[in-house]
Amino acid sequence: MTIPSIPRLRFKVNKRLGEVGDAPGMIRIADDALKPKISVFSYNEHEVQCAEGHDLAVILKQFEECKCHCHWIKINGLGDLQLIEEIGTHLNVDTLVLEDISSNHQRPKFEEYDEYVFAVSRIIFINKENEIVNSQFSAIVKKDLIITFEDDYSDRFDVIKTRLNAGKGAIRTAGPAYMLYALTDTIIDQYFVKLAHIGDSLDELEDKLYDKADKTIMYNAQHLKRSLIMMRRVAWPERDKVNDMIRSDSPLITPEVKNYLRDAYDHCIQIMDLIESYKEITSSVIDLYLSMVSNRMNEIMKVLTIISVIFIPLTFIAGIYGMNFSHQDEHGRTIPDNMPELYWPHGYVYALVLMFAIALVQVYVFWKKGWFNRL
Amino acid sequence: MTIPSIPRLRFKVNKRLGEVGDAPGMIRIADDALKPKISVFSYNEHEVQCAEGHDLAVILKQFEECKCHCHWIKINGLGDLQLIEEIGTHLNVDTLVLEDISSNHQRPKFEEYDEYVFAVSRIIFINKENEIVNSQFSAIVKKDLIITFEDDYSDRFDVIKTRLNAGKGAIRTAGPAYMLYALTDTIIDQYFVKLAHIGDSLDELEDKLYDKADKTIMYNAQHLKRSLIMMRRVAWPERDKVNDMIRSDSPLITPEVKNYLRDAYDHCIQIMDLIESYKEITSSVIDLYLSMVSNRMNEIMKVLTIISVIFIPLTFIAGIYGMNFSHQDEHGRTIPDNMPELYWPHGYVYALVLMFAIALVQVYVFWKKGWFNRL
Amino acid sequence: MTIPSIPRLRFKVNKRLGEVGDAPGMIRIADDALKPKISVFSYNEHEVQCAEGHDLAVILKQFEECKCHCHWIKINGLGDLQLIEEIGTHLNVDTLVLEDISSNHQRPKFEEYDEYVFAVSRIIFINKENEIVNSQFSAIVKKDLIITFEDDYSDRFDVIKTRLNAGKGAIRTAGPAYMLYALTDTIIDQYFVKLAHIGDSLDELEDKLYDKADKTIMYNAQHLKRSLIMMRRVAWPERDKVNDMIRSDSPLITPEVKNYLRDAYDHCIQIMDLIESYKEITSSVIDLYLSMVSNRMNEIMKVLTIISVIFIPLTFIAGIYGMNFSHQDEHGRTIPDNMPELYWPHGYVYALVLMFAIALVQVYVFWKKGWFNRL
Amino acid sequence: MTIPSIPRLRFKVNKRLGEVGDAPGMIRIADDALKPKISVFSYNEHEVQCAEGHDLAVILKQFEECKCHCHWIKINGLGDLQLIEEIGTHLNVDTLVLEDISSNHQRPKFEEYDEYVFAVSRIIFINKENEIVNSQFSAIVKKDLIITFEDDYSDRFDVIKTRLNAGKGAIRTAGPAYMLYALTDTIIDQYFVKLAHIGDSLDELEDKLYDKADKTIMYNAQHLKRSLIMMRRVAWPERDKVNDMIRSDSPLITPEVKNYLRDAYDHCIQIMDLIESYKEITSSVIDLYLSMVSNRMNEIMKVLTIISVIFIPLTFIAGIYGMNFSHQDEHGRTIPDNMPELYWPHGYVYALVLMFAIALVQVYVFWKKGWFNRL
Amino acid sequence: MTIPSIPRLRFKVNKRLGEVGDAPGMIRIADDALKPKISVFSYNEHEVQCAEGHDLAVILKQFEECKCHCHWIKINGLGDLQLIEEIGTHLNVDTLVLEDISSNHQRPKFEEYDEYVFAVSRIIFINKENEIVNSQFSAIVKKDLIITFEDDYSDRFDVIKTRLNAGKGAIRTAGPAYMLYALTDTIIDQYFVKLAHIGDSLDELEDKLYDKADKTIMYNAQHLKRSLIMMRRVAWPERDKVNDMIRSDSPLITPEVKNYLRDAYDHCIQIMDLIESYKEITSSVIDLYLSMVSNRMNEIMKVLTIISVIFIPLTFIAGIYGMNFSHQDEHGRTIPDNMPELYWPHGYVYALVLMFAIALVQVYVFWKKGWFNRL
Repeated sequence: MTIPSIPRLRFKVNKRLGEVGDAPGMIRIADDALKPKISVFSYNEHEVQCAEGHDLAVILKQFEECKCHCHWIKINGLGDLQLIEEIGTHLNVDTLVLEDISSNHQRPKFEEYDEYVFAVSRIIFINKENEIVNSQFSAIVKKDLIITFEDDYSDRFDVIKTRLNAGKGAIRTAGPAYMLYALTDTIIDQYFVKLAHIGDSLDELEDKLYDKADKTIMYNAQHLKRSLIMMRRVAWPERDKVNDMIRSDSPLITPEVKNYLRDAYDHCIQIMDLIESYKEITSSVIDLYLSMVSNRMNEIMKVLTIISVIFIPLTFIAGIYGMNFSHQDEHGRTIPDNMPELYWPHGYVYALVLMFAIALVQVYVFWKKGWFNRL
Repeated sequence: MTIPSIPRLRFKVNKRLGEVGDAPGMIRIADDALKPKISVFSYNEHEVQCAEGHDLAVILKQFEECKCHCHWIKINGLGDLQLIEEIGTHLNVDTLVLEDISSNHQRPKFEEYDEYVFAVSRIIFINKENEIVNSQFSAIVKKDLIITFEDDYSDRFDVIKTRLNAGKGAIRTAGPAYMLYALTDTIIDQYFVKLAHIGDSLDELEDKLYDKADKTIMYNAQHLKRSLIMMRRVAWPERDKVNDMIRSDSPLITPEVKNYLRDAYDHCIQIMDLIESYKEITSSVIDLYLSMVSNRMNEIMKVLTIISVIFIPLTFIAGIYGMNFSHQDEHGRTIPDNMPELYWPHGYVYALVLMFAIALVQVYVFWKKGWFNRL
Repeated sequence: MTIPSIPRLRFKVNKRLGEVGDAPGMIRIADDALKPKISVFSYNEHEVQCAEGHDLAVILKQFEECKCHCHWIKINGLGDLQLIEEIGTHLNVDTLVLEDISSNHQRPKFEEYDEYVFAVSRIIFINKENEIVNSQFSAIVKKDLIITFEDDYSDRFDVIKTRLNAGKGAIRTAGPAYMLYALTDTIIDQYFVKLAHIGDSLDELEDKLYDKADKTIMYNAQHLKRSLIMMRRVAWPERDKVNDMIRSDSPLITPEVKNYLRDAYDHCIQIMDLIESYKEITSSVIDLYLSMVSNRMNEIMKVLTIISVIFIPLTFIAGIYGMNFSHQDEHGRTIPDNMPELYWPHGYVYALVLMFAIALVQVYVFWKKGWFNRL
Repeated sequence: MTIPSIPRLRFKVNKRLGEVGDAPGMIRIADDALKPKISVFSYNEHEVQCAEGHDLAVILKQFEECKCHCHWIKINGLGDLQLIEEIGTHLNVDTLVLEDISSNHQRPKFEEYDEYVFAVSRIIFINKENEIVNSQFSAIVKKDLIITFEDDYSDRFDVIKTRLNAGKGAIRTAGPAYMLYALTDTIIDQYFVKLAHIGDSLDELEDKLYDKADKTIMYNAQHLKRSLIMMRRVAWPERDKVNDMIRSDSPLITPEVKNYLRDAYDHCIQIMDLIESYKEITSSVIDLYLSMVSNRMNEIMKVLTIISVIFIPLTFIAGIYGMNFSHQDEHGRTIPDNMPELYWPHGYVYALVLMFAIALVQVYVFWKKGWFNRL
Repeated sequence: MTIPSIPRLRFKVNKRLGEVGDAPGMIRIADDALKPKISVFSYNEHEVQCAEGHDLAVILKQFEECKCHCHWIKINGLGDLQLIEEIGTHLNVDTLVLEDISSNHQRPKFEEYDEYVFAVSRIIFINKENEIVNSQFSAIVKKDLIITFEDDYSDRFDVIKTRLNAGKGAIRTAGPAYMLYALTDTIIDQYFVKLAHIGDSLDELEDKLYDKADKTIMYNAQHLKRSLIMMRRVAWPERDKVNDMIRSDSPLITPEVKNYLRDAYDHCIQIMDLIESYKEITSSVIDLYLSMVSNRMNEIMKVLTIISVIFIPLTFIAGIYGMNFSHQDEHGRTIPDNMPELYWPHGYVYALVLMFAIALVQVYVFWKKGWFNRL
């Protein structure tokens, strides 16, 4: 049984790097990891300086040149083991953190260390195969410094760059934790975009359900359900993470930033709310669809069976008068009681009338019992 | 498959204003937002003064004229960005709060700030398309001042105006927090009205289920279920909000008001209770309906099949005696054993009697096995 | 589709008195509220004095006459607004409490005030229409005084009066809180009676399921389920209420009474336990019933279809030999190969034997495949 | 519809003794309660003395004779109200505790009093009707004294007597709380035995499911499910009770005993684990069974319907050529176009070939569509 | 009904050793327990010494020879009661701990004692019968000493031996608690391997669902579901255990090790996450499969029934004209109105045309009603 027109729905669970018995802190690079692109944004109240490169040198050069600035080091692509280790050594970052950064399956979390804090989010986006997938976003915040890691080249944070260059709001003055907030908030905002996408699909599905229900509804509803399961898996710990950040004692997370984080926390709760509501609606669409299919099938079978049953006695009567009981024996003598009806004048008409009457009675009885009503 | 007579049920999720990467505190106005109407009620123990207008001037004038009064500034319509910003500046309100006020998708919540408290509720009402929708009600309470924001023009708080003018109870003397309580309580009371509406629909549905079940029951039950899901989404955080207000340390929420809020909290719990009960009843109605449909379909199919089966052997016998086995060969010689029954005297009668007997035996066996009983 | 023999099952949700925007503490009297009957029991270690009446006078007279006694004022019927307000004024009771007393939809709760405590329970009983309904029982306990409010005339507390008159146990000496405990315990005991009633119905239902299953089982099981939902709605907050009483700091609830309340708390937990167990059994009865119906229907359809299928090839063969292919053309010449079987000696017998053989083969194949086994 | 071979499954809920309005502490004896048998075991490091009797005298005598011993008073049968009251008076036990002991429906619990602790467990055993039932085990622990109450005569604690006589381990030296632990642990161990019994039944059920599925599976699975529900009702509070004992501040529960109780707590958790796992497996067996029944029924109906459909067009063709359209009018003139096929040479053979071809085409089409595959 | 091609799925619950009433601390050896193999690894910063044997002597010898080393005593096989008791005595281990070690059904747990800590994990592996089973891993950590117990001979910890010999990382210097961490982490890593195995099976199942659905899907999905239930039973307490270790006050668990344990805790949470996701996907696969089966069956029955219904009226008409109403009486006189159609010129053609027309009308009506559409 092939269903060629339905795209295959696969729940993408990111493969875990690393092998059984690996020492903790052992960094493994995925085979298909991209070569890192490094962008350094050094900014203060007055200016933003930007540099790009592929190795540690560009970072060190910026540190050197912009001593009174706050730095945002944005690394896209995790394919360079040496670079990650050099950054770790240079910034004095724990190897367990480096392992988390280079892996691709961490749940959103927030961890405090002596000199820095470490945060992981999951970015949800739609890949070229039109699937909803999620990738990892890691960030280390130190004094006057934030380093962010993504495993692809993407323009999803261009809005932040624009705000940074425009210099509006607190973005240039509120320190690296605010930058972390701004990036996290952008990620959370993108959840809303995806949820709106899902909501629209749900609307379309409902339109289809009422207008022209076919079996794709079942597959599409299951697809949406899975997307929602996946989003919930990501959004739930994201909420906990934001909450952990709000309750953090680290001096790196300033009270001003916590104020903004409370707003992000509200957004997370709204997202959870939407996901739960959409899940309930999806279930309700599936229930309605199944009920419609069952009703429709019942309707068809009922009509067909009623037609059959009406004809069955009629065919029986035709069968009766198709019997060959002989009116006469071989000597031409009348055999008594053998189908005299066949020799009645108008016998045929009587037979037809009898059949018609039986059909009418059946229709009447079935109608009386309400079997023609839709249920 | 079209079901023209059923209204389309769509779960209205309010679209979120704002875009990915918006700076926090960025206020966006919906395209279809209404022009604000401002009513200012300045009241004290002795009198109520009322003014109306469209801009900040009317508010400032009232502040000026009624210095010893408590003010209730009621703003209907959020279509004027400048007004919101002016109010924010004038009253020293955080931009994040202004953003929440101008958005239309906040969950009920209660937030304390240094000089004021901020509360959001969701108003449930039935719109012109006869759908149950919810809109946002925001309120800021400062010393001797409460500002409320609704996004439509409505008379839902006329009962409060009446009580204010009548001056009965604590409404004129217990301060702006009492006014917030009175408004919140009115909103919660309206939940009861909607629940009563739903309860009546449920009663009707049950009547229909027992009297004249048809497939609209399924759709209507699903509709009610969704309305209840939506109400729960609103009522649950409303309860938390009221609880937060009761536990608030803010001096703006006086112990006297907390006493009244405890009453509102009880109402919220009763609402949650009712919603859960109605949800269970709705599910039970759906279960009963599906069981009835299935029983009825089974009944019909059983009867039809029994009729078929009774006639099948009869038709077979008629078929037998309709065979043309020749009694004589072409030379007129009798062919032995070829359907002698056809030449028996009364053979036809015997055949009919045989058929009748077979039908009787079948009916008896089926009846003995209890297949005519309803199950 | 009418089901005349099944009583209509309606989940009675008590209508809420009061309207949107009512000021808090506004007392409303239901239209069908009964005229209050007041009984005053004044008792101490040595004697019990009893008085009856319809207005405040009888209470005041008892207060006057029995100064060293503890008073139990039992009010049945809430139809007199003036009386409630007078009692409120005389005993210095908050108007919010009076509102709760006069309403008929409060959940069980326990509230402490400066001079008194207030408790609400729900009484479950079977009304004249044989429905399980619940009504409100409110009690105010002050020093040496307990006032109880019921909205009907009933003899449910006669056992308490008997114990009071007998003077056994702590009832005369342990103060009004003990009286509150005794009344609450009586109410909880009545839950056990109703649960026993439900348990018996469940037993009957199971007997019927195994002995003579018919479709009333579905309705009755749904009915029991609803009764259990309703009892749970009442028993759950009752448990919380008793717990609140145990943890109360009020001097009115003495440690001795708390000891007894712990016993009542155990009873509440046993009730919750029973309700949950009965709910699971009810669900299991419904599942078994549905499975039985489905099995039985399958069995019938299977037998009928097998009968049909056995006859279909036989009828086909009869049809074959009922064809009129001519053995001779109009000139009497034999047409070759046109149904020579019809002219075979014993052709008819061969045909019958063929049919019988086909039927036998079918029966054998179906039996071999195990289709005659019950599944 | 009778199912004679299935034993009736009834969830035994122990009837509650006592009536509405009973004073607290009122002891009621069940009508079928057994006459108490008293065994007193007085033991110390060096010896065990044992006495048996039916009244308080035997206890007092042992107290007198064995002053430096620890006493285990084991009472089987609760049919003697006077004895219970005498023990209560003599040992200074609260009447509420005595009421709990004489009732038969207490949940497992642990209560501390000034001079003693009180513990209730539920003993699960299989009665003579082969039902899994539970009865109550109560114990009072005082200094150097433990009194246990069971409502039947049973040898379930013979293993403890044996250990006591053998004197191995801490049983003679660790005081009455250790004895309570040992008895409780024996009761919990018996839960494992019952669970093993249930696990074996589940294995058998699965074997039957794969080898020879019939409808007893449904009943047996439901039976197992209920047994598990009942065990959970008992095991859950037992766990809480053991936990309460571990956290108890009473000097009667020594730290050494608490150490052992932690082991019993682990056992309780393992029992809960097993119950939950077995419940999931039972549900999965039911799901598989229902799916198998449905598949099998579908298979049968499909085969039967395909057979019918193959024959229907053939029978139609036979019907065509069974029509009596006359080749000649009454004057012997040929009527044009009236069934000339009947006069074709080999017409009959052509008809048979046509039928065979139609049957073949149908089989091919159905096979091509995969309708002969099992799904 | 036999399903020979499906392997039997049995949920292996490890049988509990020990009998009702066993004294606590009583060690029982399973009948099929293996003879212990002892490996002792004595290591310090500089070297690793290894010894193997079968009794206590080898351990004591290593203690003697390597006084400044940390020892890892790895015992495979629990079949020697005497050895376990000797170790217990020698290392001063509680008998309750020894009982837990020798049993095979302990849940993962962590217990602190005065001089040592005790930890239990469950190892999940695939046995020779290709079933997923779990066995017990126990470890005792004392100062400079870790003893581990497995009940089989296995190479699962060879990676640790390799790391120990290589001396990379903290493994030689961070003490026995680090070794416990390393072993636990290896066990947890193996959960990921098994989950990947399950994930692949799930992918295959989904491929099969879309490409070539057959009834093995149901069994395989149920199989996966059970494997997941079993893994959850093991992973859940494992997570709690790791958490207990992190929160432990024991000086044996150093802060450095706790840091690594936090990483293991993250892994446990990821495992729980994966298990829950896989469970939801499995359920969704089952739902889709059931919906596909039902759809397909409906489709087949619909087509078959439509074919039947189209032919039924045609066969009826053929039956009509197969009736033998006589055109002439025995005297050759025409009987009026008796089937004159049979004598019409082209009557046969008219009949065929009529049949064809009826069939066409039916097809048109059914097509118009959309009954040929797939639903």
